[in-house]
Amino acid sequence: MTGVARIRCDQVAPVVGDLTGNLSLLTTAVQRALDDRVDVLVLPELVTSGYVFRDRAEAERVAVTVEDPLFARLAEALAGTTTVVVFGFAERDGARLHNSVAVVQSDGVRAVYRKTHLWDRETLVFDPGEDAPPLVDTPHGRIGVLVCYDMEFPEMPRMLALAGADLVVVPTNWPVGAHPERDRVAEVIAAQAAARTNGVFIACCDRSGTERGQDWNEASVVVDQFGWVVAEAAPGAGTTAVTVDVFPALARDKSTSPHNDWLRDRRPALYEREVPRA
Amino acid sequence: MTGVARIRCDQVAPVVGDLTGNLSLLTTAVQRALDDRVDVLVLPELVTSGYVFRDRAEAERVAVTVEDPLFARLAEALAGTTTVVVFGFAERDGARLHNSVAVVQSDGVRAVYRKTHLWDRETLVFDPGEDAPPLVDTPHGRIGVLVCYDMEFPEMPRMLALAGADLVVVPTNWPVGAHPERDRVAEVIAAQAAARTNGVFIACCDRSGTERGQDWNEASVVVDQFGWVVAEAAPGAGTTAVTVDVFPALARDKSTSPHNDWLRDRRPALYEREVPRA
Repeated sequence: MTGVARIRCDQVAPVVGDLTGNLSLLTTAVQRALDDRVDVLVLPELVTSGYVFRDRAEAERVAVTVEDPLFARLAEALAGTTTVVVFGFAERDGARLHNSVAVVQSDGVRAVYRKTHLWDRETLVFDPGEDAPPLVDTPHGRIGVLVCYDMEFPEMPRMLALAGADLVVVPTNWPVGAHPERDRVAEVIAAQAAARTNGVFIACCDRSGTERGQDWNEASVVVDQFGWVVAEAAPGAGTTAVTVDVFPALARDKSTSPHNDWLRDRRPALYEREVPRA
Repeated sequence: MTGVARIRCDQVAPVVGDLTGNLSLLTTAVQRALDDRVDVLVLPELVTSGYVFRDRAEAERVAVTVEDPLFARLAEALAGTTTVVVFGFAERDGARLHNSVAVVQSDGVRAVYRKTHLWDRETLVFDPGEDAPPLVDTPHGRIGVLVCYDMEFPEMPRMLALAGADLVVVPTNWPVGAHPERDRVAEVIAAQAAARTNGVFIACCDRSGTERGQDWNEASVVVDQFGWVVAEAAPGAGTTAVTVDVFPALARDKSTSPHNDWLRDRRPALYEREVPRA
């Protein structure tokens, strides 16, 4: 793997139901990333479809299969580069409908992940994925994939770290939430803790653009392997891109003291034991 | 259980090797807590022994067994109250030496927990505990116990939450660590994420008092079930107490939307599956 990787979270503003317009948004973001020599481009959850669906039928109308030509066109746009593009889409698979993320390189679709922890009304629109989150070996490090609410189940970043992830990418649509001024938004705090306790980089790409009255945190962020924010969207910046160069291989050193290591210090047998009650 | 519980983290300054002086510190803190009608008093890790031992022999000299009269004396001081006292001590058990925490009420020692994840030079001084962290049913809620570095293994607060903890108490000695001004110290961020993703209250009691050149974060904190700080030591306050009234029973509602629940949304079978690699 190369030493340095340029990561970008492109916090665009998709429009619900407008597949054509959103695909154009995707194409433009990819071209911009190539112009800027970005190695790993992360786009929001459901960027091709929008998010605030009235019902399942509406989501079905903008859902695509993994055989859709859009993936081949995207791979073609990446020809001659090692750039990795990660983006969310509504996926049709027979009668099933998923909130999915694709990882695409010049040689095609490397992985598709179907969100396994559905948030709020997503439970009325999508079917939950049944597979573990994937790990994709790229020239820019081993990239694990989660979607939004998935990340707040500590088991999920943990599985990816144990499998060897250097970087966890998290396309998200974070509904705006109140938080004390002293603190970052809650989801970013969760990302910081997940990054630190697993010694991995985490890149969360949020979205912009009010949709049917719903606003977003617009808090795209890249967190380093110590849990510190190394790039973030300025509050209120709206549509913006967050770009930073990091060394994903640093995540392979999990040592935290001469006697400690984030993963080796785990006590898996103990975690299976019953909690004694008094 | 009563509705409201007054929680205090008493960020005292023990002295390494001075068992007599530290026990007096403990007694004073308990009396102060009773005067102030505190329901759950949390004291630092290893408050009776100090922390920065030169070697195991030095720790052995201030270690006590769970039969030590100090526990009965403490229970006696709590007579007629429902106050719960949680404090760290160096525990001798035959040839073994543990970094332990006791939970004491007027009827005696309710639980002893031996730290299972040892930090840095603790690995040269103490034997790691082999038991899961305990859950103690009290009039002020179901209290789970962790010690310092334990909390940064997300499996640990998770086990306690799944067992029904309302409040997780964490006696700590947090060696001072650098952090960006925008952020709280890393361990507090971990506590916030653990509280939020499990829907539990967390009370971390740090220590004060430079010991053999070692300073501490002095960042005692109580975090609510949403992950927000509801009481904290002011930076640089040194020896200080953090006191706040909370409703631990609120932790029993894990719902996060009309369709979501922090614990029911888990996918335990999925967490056992192998991560697919591409």
